[in-house]
Amino acid sequence: MNIVSEGKTKKVEDLGTEVMLHFKDDITAGDGAKHDVLQNKGAICSEITARLMKYLNEKGIYTMYLEYLPPNKIRARKLKMIPLEVIVRFKKAGSFVRRYGGNEGEDLPSPLVEFTYKSDTLHDPLMCVEHLEVLGITTKEIAQSIIQQAKEAGNYLKEFFESHSIELWDMKFEFGLDLDGKVCLGDEISPDTMRLRKSGEIFDKDIYRRDLGNPLEKYEVVLKLCQSIDL
Amino acid sequence: MNIVSEGKTKKVEDLGTEVMLHFKDDITAGDGAKHDVLQNKGAICSEITARLMKYLNEKGIYTMYLEYLPPNKIRARKLKMIPLEVIVRFKKAGSFVRRYGGNEGEDLPSPLVEFTYKSDTLHDPLMCVEHLEVLGITTKEIAQSIIQQAKEAGNYLKEFFESHSIELWDMKFEFGLDLDGKVCLGDEISPDTMRLRKSGEIFDKDIYRRDLGNPLEKYEVVLKLCQSIDL
Repeated sequence: MNIVSEGKTKKVEDLGTEVMLHFKDDITAGDGAKHDVLQNKGAICSEITARLMKYLNEKGIYTMYLEYLPPNKIRARKLKMIPLEVIVRFKKAGSFVRRYGGNEGEDLPSPLVEFTYKSDTLHDPLMCVEHLEVLGITTKEIAQSIIQQAKEAGNYLKEFFESHSIELWDMKFEFGLDLDGKVCLGDEISPDTMRLRKSGEIFDKDIYRRDLGNPLEKYEVVLKLCQSIDL
Repeated sequence: MNIVSEGKTKKVEDLGTEVMLHFKDDITAGDGAKHDVLQNKGAICSEITARLMKYLNEKGIYTMYLEYLPPNKIRARKLKMIPLEVIVRFKKAGSFVRRYGGNEGEDLPSPLVEFTYKSDTLHDPLMCVEHLEVLGITTKEIAQSIIQQAKEAGNYLKEFFESHSIELWDMKFEFGLDLDGKVCLGDEISPDTMRLRKSGEIFDKDIYRRDLGNPLEKYEVVLKLCQSIDL
């Protein structure tokens, strides 16, 4: 098996013109300072990712998703990942509140897309489009395309969860360029990467960040909703 | 005397359709955590501000400057200040290096304009244009106008100091809207708000931030250069 890279929660196997993502059972928080292994997490998060990316594909969003291989693998387009976390916010939470104040769960008047640079040592600093250009991370054109696609994908996911009476507060995407240089949604879409709430009840990684019990019980609830999406 | 506001380094006196800025002898750093009073600082910084704003006026930049009243007062246009620090960077330094790494004094491939929100309690967080809109701080149009004017003003100041063999690494501007709603450069332009270097020698507030001696000796050198600009 030709594993070409390994992150905190996934391994990437090179298949030539495609890749196989192996979702691990690891969960981390605080730039990797907190770390645990939760049996079955990789299976849950890979299946949620597969189903939500399938849903987005059908809505016309270009994602990496090609095939789900139970329990924990996704066959995907090969992407050159851009080292950014692309955050779409519908409500104030997390790093937004730490940065700008306000209250968790407060509405934003319109969706906001933020870029943070993936670096645990620098603590994922915020970057504006100008920083991406000046620091040579990506072009303004690619950044604008990512903003557009992130907003669209975010809105579709919000609609999906709303139809199941769950609020999507924010989410983190990662994008890459495919072999033709086209912007493509990659990585993962799971309760690790979204804030999902239902009148105070938490269905996402904040359960782990705040030591509120076993997050997988709630991740499984999210998985069941996503199983309404056919693969 | 009708003082309508007082900041860390200036008092604003209302004159009706204009204002009088009184520059204080105070110097602060670290969001106000460090604070001293240096006799004559207000006089030095007000005269430098007056002369550099006069220079920018002559270059076609719209500034608040109307008249310098020695030792420490500037008669100025009345502005509704926008609560942003507008930073123009030619080289990496200060908060840029803390945020993104790299080395102090390293060139940026092109000038970068950053906005930070003026808040000591939030530690002046970085904002992108989208944040300004979503948080209701200013419109995209005003932000774009500020970026344009900040870059132009920054380039003119860089030229001026280069003609005196000093490098301008970065500077902080503050803008406001005049009584007609037009974007206008306000506040101060002094060694408190610029990084000025000459082969390792520091002529700016970093002397104070880093406890490297009496900053006013170097501020006076800067003042002498600026006295080549007629008032």
